Amino acid sequence: MLPKGFIAQGVHGGIAKKKDKKDIALFYSELPATVAGMLTGNLVKAAPVLVCRDRLEKTAEGYRAIVANSGCANACTGGRGQKDALTMCADAAAALDVRPENVLVASTGVIGQRLPMGRVRDGIQALAGSLRGKGSDETNAVAAIMTTDTFPKTARRSVVCGGKRITVWGCAKGAGMIHPDLKALHATMLSFVLTDASVEAKALDEALRAAAAGSFNCVSVDGDTSTNDTLLLMANGAAENRTVTRKSRDFKVFLNAVSAVCLDLAKMIARDGEGATRLVEIRVKNAGSAAAAHRIAATIATSPLVKTAVFGNDANWGRVIAAAGRAGVPFDPDTVDIALCGMTVARRGMAVAFSEEKAKRLLARKEISISVDLRKGPGSAVYYTCDLSFDYVKINASYRS
Amino acid sequence: MLPKGFIAQGVHGGIAKKKDKKDIALFYSELPATVAGMLTGNLVKAAPVLVCRDRLEKTAEGYRAIVANSGCANACTGGRGQKDALTMCADAAAALDVRPENVLVASTGVIGQRLPMGRVRDGIQALAGSLRGKGSDETNAVAAIMTTDTFPKTARRSVVCGGKRITVWGCAKGAGMIHPDLKALHATMLSFVLTDASVEAKALDEALRAAAAGSFNCVSVDGDTSTNDTLLLMANGAAENRTVTRKSRDFKVFLNAVSAVCLDLAKMIARDGEGATRLVEIRVKNAGSAAAAHRIAATIATSPLVKTAVFGNDANWGRVIAAAGRAGVPFDPDTVDIALCGMTVARRGMAVAFSEEKAKRLLARKEISISVDLRKGPGSAVYYTCDLSFDYVKINASYRS
Repeated sequence: MLPKGFIAQGVHGGIAKKKDKKDIALFYSELPATVAGMLTGNLVKAAPVLVCRDRLEKTAEGYRAIVANSGCANACTGGRGQKDALTMCADAAAALDVRPENVLVASTGVIGQRLPMGRVRDGIQALAGSLRGKGSDETNAVAAIMTTDTFPKTARRSVVCGGKRITVWGCAKGAGMIHPDLKALHATMLSFVLTDASVEAKALDEALRAAAAGSFNCVSVDGDTSTNDTLLLMANGAAENRTVTRKSRDFKVFLNAVSAVCLDLAKMIARDGEGATRLVEIRVKNAGSAAAAHRIAATIATSPLVKTAVFGNDANWGRVIAAAGRAGVPFDPDTVDIALCGMTVARRGMAVAFSEEKAKRLLARKEISISVDLRKGPGSAVYYTCDLSFDYVKINASYRS
Repeated sequence: MLPKGFIAQGVHGGIAKKKDKKDIALFYSELPATVAGMLTGNLVKAAPVLVCRDRLEKTAEGYRAIVANSGCANACTGGRGQKDALTMCADAAAALDVRPENVLVASTGVIGQRLPMGRVRDGIQALAGSLRGKGSDETNAVAAIMTTDTFPKTARRSVVCGGKRITVWGCAKGAGMIHPDLKALHATMLSFVLTDASVEAKALDEALRAAAAGSFNCVSVDGDTSTNDTLLLMANGAAENRTVTRKSRDFKVFLNAVSAVCLDLAKMIARDGEGATRLVEIRVKNAGSAAAAHRIAATIATSPLVKTAVFGNDANWGRVIAAAGRAGVPFDPDTVDIALCGMTVARRGMAVAFSEEKAKRLLARKEISISVDLRKGPGSAVYYTCDLSFDYVKINASYRS
């Protein structure tokens, strides 16, 4: 169930090629909401990203809705693409009887194609009708933003904050073109996090950045950064709690709830990486600094050789240490310990005897871990990724067709 | 045929798991040779790399042989691994009646396992015997350094230089763990380039660095950098030409021959990338600088989404521009033109109408090109890679077993 004061729906508009696939979603807040956003760090930004950026740069206040579609990224579509994104907002605003500038927009799908605006308009009309008739069904909204995802991704936390029970609910889509970096959130990902908490704009922004740093910023599927990444956190205050500020004691409580929702979603994205058969948790510790640990973990997480070894249940730790060695971070290879699923396979940079049979059994689990201890200094990081399978190739060798 | 004064052989020593696979090679110069080398930039360096580094730091002169093996990388093997690499040199030196410090060594194969030194010694004895008996056969030597390679890689140029005909011959192995960067040569690659030219040590070094920058430094298979990369250029002077110096007019002639051999080998490595079905040439032009162009080309070349699209004959140029946009190099997305196999698919950052059928046909060729024109400045770069296929996953999910 959504937090208080939010409703959502999704319908089939015929934008995506798949028959009957829901492809337009609407998230609506009955009260004006404060919004914090993080958008793609890719230099090539899709039209809806530019519209969100312009709006959020002007104000964080007064937002009423997010309209989103799958099947077409509306990226590399020039000025006409931006006009289309603005029209999507205006159509949604008209159908919901709110102001166009209070609507945010997101798209995901094929790059370089224009939105079929007739279908988009009809879809938005149908959405608004559905919201009035059948009411809210966030399941449909979440289904409508999925592309190569194999399961819907939602997470929820409910905590007491500012004297009231507040709820943080989030959804995400994303299975490919997923890769974060240190500067900004990067992922072919749409994630909308909704809360009925009352939160001051600056506190909302800080909470989102901190939560993303430890969640979406620690996930990679394929190292590719999208043109369309959009993470929005919308707080409408319907819970009537004492407003959370950066200095209030409640901030930590609120941040923890947002972080937990984001981490749940980020792990789901890694688990559902295109073609993935395994969720891989990479832990790097004693790296000298957290940034160094993060960089090494990210390099291991994006190594095709590590990812194919995981797919093959192969305890090939040499590929792990080779990936660490090219991360561009200084360390002493002769002090490195490596464990796979808790079983030590290398100590002080050299092989230790282990049972290959046991390793194969451990690595066949759905969730596996790779731990690298550099024995250098404080500084650790956790990173999530998936394996690289035949299905990754299959999915991406035929995405457009 | 090898340049004057060189002989080579390869035998099966039982290091590699495959039955009868040749796995030890010996390259021998009848005259003391000058050597220039480039070694892996990976922080984790294999024992033979450390031995070559130590020797080449001491002197570039007087080398007589290279001994190399496949099947075991002798990496992450600690002090005992280094002793093993030195023993390989000593055994080869004894069999060839030269000094141990005049022998260089290289290994490729599984990381984290020690060399089976008994088999290595027996193999070297057999090699020396074979050289004395059957004589030189570089085909066997090249076969002995192959791992997942599907064809042997050799190249040759013969030019008049310093008043004599000189020959540059090179061989390479490498199909996976292939990725260069701007700082140093990085590639799971062994390449030995032999010439009968007489070349001053500094000129030899400069020629090798320049040739590598435009060849091995512009190739990626999987973005993974090896612990064992070794590129050696050995000049024995048997052609009796006027010695090439950096300032002589002959330098350019010699450099061009070395560059041509290295480029031939580098393109063969991309063409033979693990599981590759296509050789992909990426041309980035009119970037702000050559370094910017190189970085964009490298990012496109390592994008799994671009590489799977190539495998699927899919003219998915959106993935190309998205990869360019995450390269960390500033440009204006609205001035970018993209062509696939000479057919323009995007102009000024937006789609242009093109025949999908024709695109599929063009992309089905064995050699394809991706051209990106940034219309910004004078920098350009060429980069070679391959597609990402089912077989890449198959090969690497079962490499050790």
